[in-house]
Amino acid sequence: MSQIEQHDTHVVVLGAGVIGLTTALKIQEEAGYTVTIVAETLPTDPKSIKYTSHWAGGHHVSMPSESDPRKADLEKETFKVMWDLSAPGGEAEGCFLRAPQTEYNIVEDKTPDYLTFMPDFKRLPSDSFVSVLGAISATTFTTVNINTPVYLPWLLSRFLARGGTIVRGSVQHISQILEGGTQIFTPSRRASQQVDALVVCAGLGARTLGGVEDKHVHPVRGQTVILRAPWIRFGRSVVGEGGSITYIIPRRSGDVIVGGTRVANDWYPVPRPETAQDILQRGLAVCPELASPEVRAVRNSTVEDLQALIVEEGCGFRPARTGGIRLEAELFDVPGSQGRKVPVVHNYGHGGYGFQSSWGSANVALELLKQAGERK
Amino acid sequence: MSQIEQHDTHVVVLGAGVIGLTTALKIQEEAGYTVTIVAETLPTDPKSIKYTSHWAGGHHVSMPSESDPRKADLEKETFKVMWDLSAPGGEAEGCFLRAPQTEYNIVEDKTPDYLTFMPDFKRLPSDSFVSVLGAISATTFTTVNINTPVYLPWLLSRFLARGGTIVRGSVQHISQILEGGTQIFTPSRRASQQVDALVVCAGLGARTLGGVEDKHVHPVRGQTVILRAPWIRFGRSVVGEGGSITYIIPRRSGDVIVGGTRVANDWYPVPRPETAQDILQRGLAVCPELASPEVRAVRNSTVEDLQALIVEEGCGFRPARTGGIRLEAELFDVPGSQGRKVPVVHNYGHGGYGFQSSWGSANVALELLKQAGERK
Amino acid sequence: MSQIEQHDTHVVVLGAGVIGLTTALKIQEEAGYTVTIVAETLPTDPKSIKYTSHWAGGHHVSMPSESDPRKADLEKETFKVMWDLSAPGGEAEGCFLRAPQTEYNIVEDKTPDYLTFMPDFKRLPSDSFVSVLGAISATTFTTVNINTPVYLPWLLSRFLARGGTIVRGSVQHISQILEGGTQIFTPSRRASQQVDALVVCAGLGARTLGGVEDKHVHPVRGQTVILRAPWIRFGRSVVGEGGSITYIIPRRSGDVIVGGTRVANDWYPVPRPETAQDILQRGLAVCPELASPEVRAVRNSTVEDLQALIVEEGCGFRPARTGGIRLEAELFDVPGSQGRKVPVVHNYGHGGYGFQSSWGSANVALELLKQAGERK
Amino acid sequence: MSQIEQHDTHVVVLGAGVIGLTTALKIQEEAGYTVTIVAETLPTDPKSIKYTSHWAGGHHVSMPSESDPRKADLEKETFKVMWDLSAPGGEAEGCFLRAPQTEYNIVEDKTPDYLTFMPDFKRLPSDSFVSVLGAISATTFTTVNINTPVYLPWLLSRFLARGGTIVRGSVQHISQILEGGTQIFTPSRRASQQVDALVVCAGLGARTLGGVEDKHVHPVRGQTVILRAPWIRFGRSVVGEGGSITYIIPRRSGDVIVGGTRVANDWYPVPRPETAQDILQRGLAVCPELASPEVRAVRNSTVEDLQALIVEEGCGFRPARTGGIRLEAELFDVPGSQGRKVPVVHNYGHGGYGFQSSWGSANVALELLKQAGERK
Ligand SMILES: Cc1cc2nc3c(=O)[nH]c(=O)nc-3n(C[C@H](O)[C@H](O)[C@H](O)COP(=O)(O)OP(=O)(O)OC[C@H]3O[C@@H](n4cnc5c(N)ncnc54)[C@H](O)[C@@H]3O)c2cc1C
Ligand SMILES: Cc1cc2nc3c(=O)[nH]c(=O)nc-3n(C[C@H](O)[C@H](O)[C@H](O)COP(=O)(O)OP(=O)(O)OC[C@H]3O[C@@H](n4cnc5c(N)ncnc54)[C@H](O)[C@@H]3O)c2cc1C
Ligand SMILES: Cc1cc2nc3c(=O)[nH]c(=O)nc-3n(C[C@H](O)[C@H](O)[C@H](O)COP(=O)(O)OP(=O)(O)OC[C@H]3O[C@@H](n4cnc5c(N)ncnc54)[C@H](O)[C@@H]3O)c2cc1C
Ligand SMILES: Cc1cc2nc3c(=O)[nH]c(=O)nc-3n(C[C@H](O)[C@H](O)[C@H](O)COP(=O)(O)OP(=O)(O)OC[C@H]3O[C@@H](n4cnc5c(N)ncnc54)[C@H](O)[C@@H]3O)c2cc1C
Repeated sequence: MSQIEQHDTHVVVLGAGVIGLTTALKIQEEAGYTVTIVAETLPTDPKSIKYTSHWAGGHHVSMPSESDPRKADLEKETFKVMWDLSAPGGEAEGCFLRAPQTEYNIVEDKTPDYLTFMPDFKRLPSDSFVSVLGAISATTFTTVNINTPVYLPWLLSRFLARGGTIVRGSVQHISQILEGGTQIFTPSRRASQQVDALVVCAGLGARTLGGVEDKHVHPVRGQTVILRAPWIRFGRSVVGEGGSITYIIPRRSGDVIVGGTRVANDWYPVPRPETAQDILQRGLAVCPELASPEVRAVRNSTVEDLQALIVEEGCGFRPARTGGIRLEAELFDVPGSQGRKVPVVHNYGHGGYGFQSSWGSANVALELLKQAGERK
Repeated sequence: MSQIEQHDTHVVVLGAGVIGLTTALKIQEEAGYTVTIVAETLPTDPKSIKYTSHWAGGHHVSMPSESDPRKADLEKETFKVMWDLSAPGGEAEGCFLRAPQTEYNIVEDKTPDYLTFMPDFKRLPSDSFVSVLGAISATTFTTVNINTPVYLPWLLSRFLARGGTIVRGSVQHISQILEGGTQIFTPSRRASQQVDALVVCAGLGARTLGGVEDKHVHPVRGQTVILRAPWIRFGRSVVGEGGSITYIIPRRSGDVIVGGTRVANDWYPVPRPETAQDILQRGLAVCPELASPEVRAVRNSTVEDLQALIVEEGCGFRPARTGGIRLEAELFDVPGSQGRKVPVVHNYGHGGYGFQSSWGSANVALELLKQAGERK
Repeated sequence: MSQIEQHDTHVVVLGAGVIGLTTALKIQEEAGYTVTIVAETLPTDPKSIKYTSHWAGGHHVSMPSESDPRKADLEKETFKVMWDLSAPGGEAEGCFLRAPQTEYNIVEDKTPDYLTFMPDFKRLPSDSFVSVLGAISATTFTTVNINTPVYLPWLLSRFLARGGTIVRGSVQHISQILEGGTQIFTPSRRASQQVDALVVCAGLGARTLGGVEDKHVHPVRGQTVILRAPWIRFGRSVVGEGGSITYIIPRRSGDVIVGGTRVANDWYPVPRPETAQDILQRGLAVCPELASPEVRAVRNSTVEDLQALIVEEGCGFRPARTGGIRLEAELFDVPGSQGRKVPVVHNYGHGGYGFQSSWGSANVALELLKQAGERK
Repeated sequence: MSQIEQHDTHVVVLGAGVIGLTTALKIQEEAGYTVTIVAETLPTDPKSIKYTSHWAGGHHVSMPSESDPRKADLEKETFKVMWDLSAPGGEAEGCFLRAPQTEYNIVEDKTPDYLTFMPDFKRLPSDSFVSVLGAISATTFTTVNINTPVYLPWLLSRFLARGGTIVRGSVQHISQILEGGTQIFTPSRRASQQVDALVVCAGLGARTLGGVEDKHVHPVRGQTVILRAPWIRFGRSVVGEGGSITYIIPRRSGDVIVGGTRVANDWYPVPRPETAQDILQRGLAVCPELASPEVRAVRNSTVEDLQALIVEEGCGFRPARTGGIRLEAELFDVPGSQGRKVPVVHNYGHGGYGFQSSWGSANVALELLKQAGERK
């Protein structure tokens, strides 16, 4: 009988944000790998400033990066996976909303062909966007909008349903896991299963995690407002120097995220009221449809009309990294092991594009893991 | 675009054990029902004495009940669903192990035809079980063994992926939900979505939940030992007065549950060491194969040989109910609503057979819900 | 050397509200008693609807009770202790504010001499309270206002500093503690210290706690608003049928509690916005000084003027009991002990007067404990 | 009425270990300072590897330091305070055990007069310690042994009773506190009280705390075994290169700490079983009296005899700092404040001597705070 599960290689993934979950799922597919996730915060926890994935707007709109040339490919690859997952009737359809997206550029678009791979891609004639303040070009296409509060637990549950294990724990130094396994966090008597490899998906935590302490990792704070506006079934962004400035992201649930801000090294962990006002103001300028149909029927809407629709104000720290995502492998000495070395694969630093690069990054991480295993 | 979610009817399911999860899934299938689960403990939490479903052995072996005549049908119906889910190549195959089961009766079997509907059902000739102390008859058939730590999150995952919402919260009185919805547990400013119906799947919690406080509900404590014994790919029970006394349940993962005990109104929340010893002793008597092949090759095995295989000792409180499962609907006044009445459907009290009656019970609950909605 | 601590008798106190903490402290004073507190919620936790003591206004203003004749004495005794604790220069001075209190009666005061024992007691001439709508008599005296967020952790810390132990745990049935001690909640290897007596100070929890399940216990919901108004250094109540209707309680910190409501069997666990408005309205009628001196200097103040002062809205469940506080002892069989019996002392059901009866109740509980020990 | 609290200067202390608590208490004494402690872990929490103070042995035995010349004075000053606190009949007597201490040197004692200030100081004649393997000199004196699980909550209690506030929160960057105050951790609507100064007492946390990130801070791991041995009323250490190697510390409660180890940059967060064995072996060599009187009456005791006495095995991370304790002040820009600067005083890095230098360090911190305030 061949149903006995193989426990050949035990891989621990540190982190349960979108990167950790996706990477863990990917690794599980590889025959002979048993995977345990260790994380301080899980997707089923209340929102916390220490867990960025809960705060993402959550669409797939790729932007070019000068410092990180791999980014474009990782995002294309991810788009393919998400497009399939979101297919009508598909199992994960409920995690996504496919919807038309419009990008208004207020600075010159230096890579006008960057998004031509997206479904229904079109350039808009200039007379169609006169109303959007300052736009000099615009494109439209169809993309996926990720229903993050549904998608993250769905990833977790798939991981568990395939036999994955999840352990809550706060790791101070990666040597803790390498020496003691996940048993350091659990009272169980189960004989300690040796850790054969570690994948670090700690997001911003990589800055302070002992054994990594990567000072290139830093927060790029983003603040948002969530409105209840189920009548919005499209996305819009105003794109300026360095990325989108104001964006509207619809969710399948009928909630809509309005953003945003992008401030490097700003550690303020709660929404600033004056910024929330400013976001709504900008959002309404780009998208007067945010106000309810009833209001619009009778008057030009103002920010006050949006107040009643507010579900939540939030902010998160994009785990940015100077130089882009770290995707690389090292060998680490296991303390007290007389020379045992364990591969450690890094997959962190996804800044403002962790969702849309998640599956691509996970593929690379798995590749690095397999290579490291062979080299060892 | 028709993707805007319909919020015709908002149903809250209280409880996220196997009953709450299955019932929530079932209700979701009904067009126009939006479902939120509220629960104190979720399947992705660490094991807790307050959440029975984590402790179940988890096979489907139906036993007749005198007090609850519906039980047989609910379990048959559930078996059909689980048999399909566990089909080779099916999506939920990993949640189950189909395996041969042998039942040894040490008292007269008064309903010898009760299990003839099970696949491969056979009565064993008496010379085949002389070795099992005290058995006077025996049957064998194929059944499903539920990999509970995988099956429960799989149920949750399906629920979330279909757009369900899950809210952690401890309910003191059902009027809290009826009046305030699930917003009482979330800091969100989201305007409260009215609760149109409540389904109580609180297990043992139904004893103390305000507005229910059903004193017929009481614990029947069961203690078990989990061994790592992937060589065991069959199930066995010794059945005495009132049900199985000792049982061996194999899991797809290679773990094996050895049980058990069945003591009404015993509230002791942690394993008793002397009982664990006794269970292993009995388990070994019924199933000498529990010891590892290496040990058996060289000697008759003893309880000591099993020590090294112990993964975990556990105990759980089967949510028994005098009179059997409560499956019935009531109308409740919403406090402060000037006369609004909301249907409350009860689905709790599944004792030692919650998994194997889950889908059947969920069907009845949905039926009650629909009827109550019409009557209202 | 006589410094070795005696562990003669191990008493477990269930509950860490004002009653559990005070009782534990009292018992510690008795030579030869070692005390452990077990509780689900501790005073250093965030506020929770399951822990009433965090929500109390917190003054000492005794009211007669027809159903519970002991109440008057328990409260007098408690006042003496609190008066001493709050003495200028005393160690616990910071936990209290001694301040003048005025009680306005809008129904006939049937026990006009009930509070004459309070310092500075005086009856007010009727012309002095014409301004308070509907008052027909009034008295004034000095009392203590308890700074509850300071006083509760102070009690806990005194308990710990005297060698007490605190264990977090949720008890389903008191037999769990009687059989297994507090080790059922802790992974420690410390050899299990037998529990020689249990004192139940579970407040509202006594309604659902297994082995007690006292249905006379029920919530009397009280809602309040906390204002930042350090200029208020006096207390005021409007007293109607059955107790005070509207009250102003100043805290040493400069916060002021404005209440209130008193609704039996109302389980709504979060503040109702319309009630908060009503409370402020009534508060302002009794005490126009709530508005800031700056505002009052220029106009008659309104409820709007109080908005900016709001620190927090809250509500709590007074653990009322038909028949009054339960102060009595029983003997309980220890499960699995072959006949060992353990005294269980009850001290719960303090309704709206738990703080002001705490020290008196604790004395009685200790007395019952000692008697039970002797009888045994 | 002068009872209104003065909020002249609001000082936040980050950290609630022995350093944070002692410093907060010291600052409170200064007229016009209001103090709030912010910390992730509090003394009333279960033991955690992130809170060193729970793991200290806890005696006062000063050792010279070459890198940190102030250390001697800080410790002398602290001894004076602790000697007073531990006086018979004093309020904090229960937090200490005054007991005779013997120090056995196995390397040459280069500072033989270092401890002559201690009560009852004496050099032992060499014939008195032949039995202790390898000792070449020995001294004896009286010192205080700190009952840490009692002393820490006692400090907290005093702080609260004097009107201090405690807020649980995990700070990622000190700018969070400087900009937002402690309101970022509390849902309260209370208007934010400005932070006028911050004192960083984060222990090992100073390594990763944003805005500090002091890489000179590192763990020096110490492992211990706690025995129940109330017959031990004296302390003993074996001192080698760089400090004590093996030590016996008696606690007032009757528990005894046996240590130890001292390994820099060893992050292993749970006790290693083989180290525990080694510690008991060494402990028994120095102090055969660890075995119970009953055992010693009949035979030479072995490590096995100590097994039954084990209460707990533990380990902690001494927050060491290359260069010694950081006691210094800086001015920090408040983000978004248009130029407001706030003094930040550092008081961390106390390695293996945080208790015995606590009061001295707190004095210096207060001095720095006052100077910084004046300079500002
Ligand atoms: C406002 C906003 C809008 C955004 N919009 C988009 C968008 O539209 N599209 C898009 O693709 N991206 C978007 N992002 C970016 C996206 O959210 C992030 O790139 C992504 O969430 C990063 O995921 P992560 O798994 O790396 O980190 P996280 O989600 O922060 O997860 C980190 C995990 O590591 C764990 N961890 C860290 N340190 C430790 C430790 N020491 N011990 C144990 N566990 C540890 C944490 O507990 C957590 O589980 C947005 C971000 C923000 C803030
Ligand atoms: C040792 C053992 C072996 C077993 N073997 C089998 C077997 O082989 N086959 C089989 O079919 N069954 C078996 N069972 C029985 C099975 O485990 C139970 O019937 C089943 O788990 C009951 O599920 P439940 O959802 O009703 O309760 P639970 O799993 O206990 O779930 C109750 C849910 O309600 C929530 N809840 C309760 N009160 C509140 C409240 N006031 N507020 C918020 N949430 C609340 C809880 O948090 C939880 O989410 C076994 C049980 C034991 C103990
Ligand atoms: C708005 C308001 C104003 C008030 N004003 C005053 C006033 O001015 N003066 C006055 O004297 N009183 C006042 N009260 C009343 C006072 O607050 C209560 O009488 C008092 O707090 C009750 O204390 P307790 O310790 O009995 O209950 P609680 O504070 O609720 O504590 C109960 C404890 O038991 C624990 N517990 C319960 N069940 C379990 C279990 N099964 N397992 C483990 N732990 C358990 C809980 O976790 C908790 O620690 C007021 C109350 C309210 C709501
Ligand atoms: C085995 C052992 C034996 C010892 N024996 C002795 C002895 O005999 N005598 C002696 O004097 N010393 C002894 N020590 C040393 C002593 O324990 C330490 O010096 C002392 O506990 C350090 O205290 P602390 O307050 O600096 O750190 P901690 O006790 O670790 O406290 C740090 C505090 O800062 C908080 N914190 C940190 N970072 C953050 C953040 N980012 N956000 C919020 N909060 C944060 C933590 O939550 C915690 O509250 C011993 C230590 C060990 C391990």
